[in-house]
Amino acid sequence: MTANIRLDVTYDGTGYSGFQVQAGADTVQGRLEEALGVLYKGKIRVAGAGRTDAGVHARGQVAGYTAPFNIPVERLPLALNSLLPGDIVVTGAAEAPENFHARFSARRKIYSYSLDLAPYPRVMLRRFTWHHPDPVDSARLRQAASLLEGKHDFRSFQAQGSAVRRTERTLFRISVEHQAEEHLLRLIYEGDGFLYKMVRLLTGSLLRAGRGELLPEEMARALSGESPWAVGPTAPAHGLCLEKVIY
Amino acid sequence: MTANIRLDVTYDGTGYSGFQVQAGADTVQGRLEEALGVLYKGKIRVAGAGRTDAGVHARGQVAGYTAPFNIPVERLPLALNSLLPGDIVVTGAAEAPENFHARFSARRKIYSYSLDLAPYPRVMLRRFTWHHPDPVDSARLRQAASLLEGKHDFRSFQAQGSAVRRTERTLFRISVEHQAEEHLLRLIYEGDGFLYKMVRLLTGSLLRAGRGELLPEEMARALSGESPWAVGPTAPAHGLCLEKVIY
Repeated sequence: MTANIRLDVTYDGTGYSGFQVQAGADTVQGRLEEALGVLYKGKIRVAGAGRTDAGVHARGQVAGYTAPFNIPVERLPLALNSLLPGDIVVTGAAEAPENFHARFSARRKIYSYSLDLAPYPRVMLRRFTWHHPDPVDSARLRQAASLLEGKHDFRSFQAQGSAVRRTERTLFRISVEHQAEEHLLRLIYEGDGFLYKMVRLLTGSLLRAGRGELLPEEMARALSGESPWAVGPTAPAHGLCLEKVIY
Repeated sequence: MTANIRLDVTYDGTGYSGFQVQAGADTVQGRLEEALGVLYKGKIRVAGAGRTDAGVHARGQVAGYTAPFNIPVERLPLALNSLLPGDIVVTGAAEAPENFHARFSARRKIYSYSLDLAPYPRVMLRRFTWHHPDPVDSARLRQAASLLEGKHDFRSFQAQGSAVRRTERTLFRISVEHQAEEHLLRLIYEGDGFLYKMVRLLTGSLLRAGRGELLPEEMARALSGESPWAVGPTAPAHGLCLEKVIY
């Protein structure tokens, strides 16, 4: 009897060409399908909640698949981890309702973007933070962030070439966690969905606002399409992490 | 005019065959000498405070060398970092007294050993922690650690094949930092010197004591050479980090 299985997946995305399978590229989905193929002795197709880009990490990715036969879910994490490389770790497995789909059933997602503000990059953090030694005014950054919260048309905050029709999204919150003594800055984004590279474009824009190079109002006006030059640059992939998917 | 220069060096040791130069191996010292060679246009010989093993990290390594001519020390970190790979970062440079030697002038060293106690290894920590999902009783571990503090003959706590004559060392403290909610355990060792693989052997022994597999007294007796079976195993390199050198 087939079953609908949900996996909780974490990964260090440094060495991967993103989540989604592409011909000739090393991807997280590809590695998961390879491990599942060994376990179930046949091709298994995996659906991921978020198609994270090359170099982006995940502490809370969710992947779903249809199991051709029953393997007790409590055994799946250890069995899969023994087949996966060390930078992809399955931390949970559960049987999901028949109509559950990792991507289409997701209601909200939480992403974090982490910055190392120390004068010199810290070697223990460098795979997961963007080194940004310039002073950032977190009060300014918070003010700019608050203008982006809510339901808006984020079409200016997507990478060129995207072909999504609906570009309206709701950003429930952008939290700015500034640990001054630790020289760390973390931006937390919770939304009902994100356009292509939206979090990295929001981050690049907010940092410019935080450095005083951009008035928050100018950035907010980009929401109406009036000042597209107020958007970006795109912050690099390695500071980004998919923290959680909410169903 | 030559000058005696002291560098503060941090590194992610994952990809290196240790600090010390060896023929045909990629080492931290080798990379530093390469970068300095470019900067000073000639061979520079570096001395490191601690010869960390393959896979061991450093947040506070100190390296010294004789500069053949003057480059302002405040420019050295950025200049060297632009020539070094991203997993080696120079965080400070200063002119040192003529008689300063990175290794022989060191009075104390602080090492940390970090463990990830979560049920599944956390991908963001895996390069710098030993995954140890078995329960550890930190009270027991602390008790065992306190017996090792002080001046002792640590000859049982060194790797086979060491040829050091004096094996007496003083361990000023072993701190046990257990963050139960974060599933993290950190052991901090401060001593006047450490024998070959001593910190990793101490860590392996303390964990056995913390799991209740070894009575603290049995381990302490190893200090007198009575119960050498109470020593070890050698904890893996990647949990170890040279935190600080005190002059």
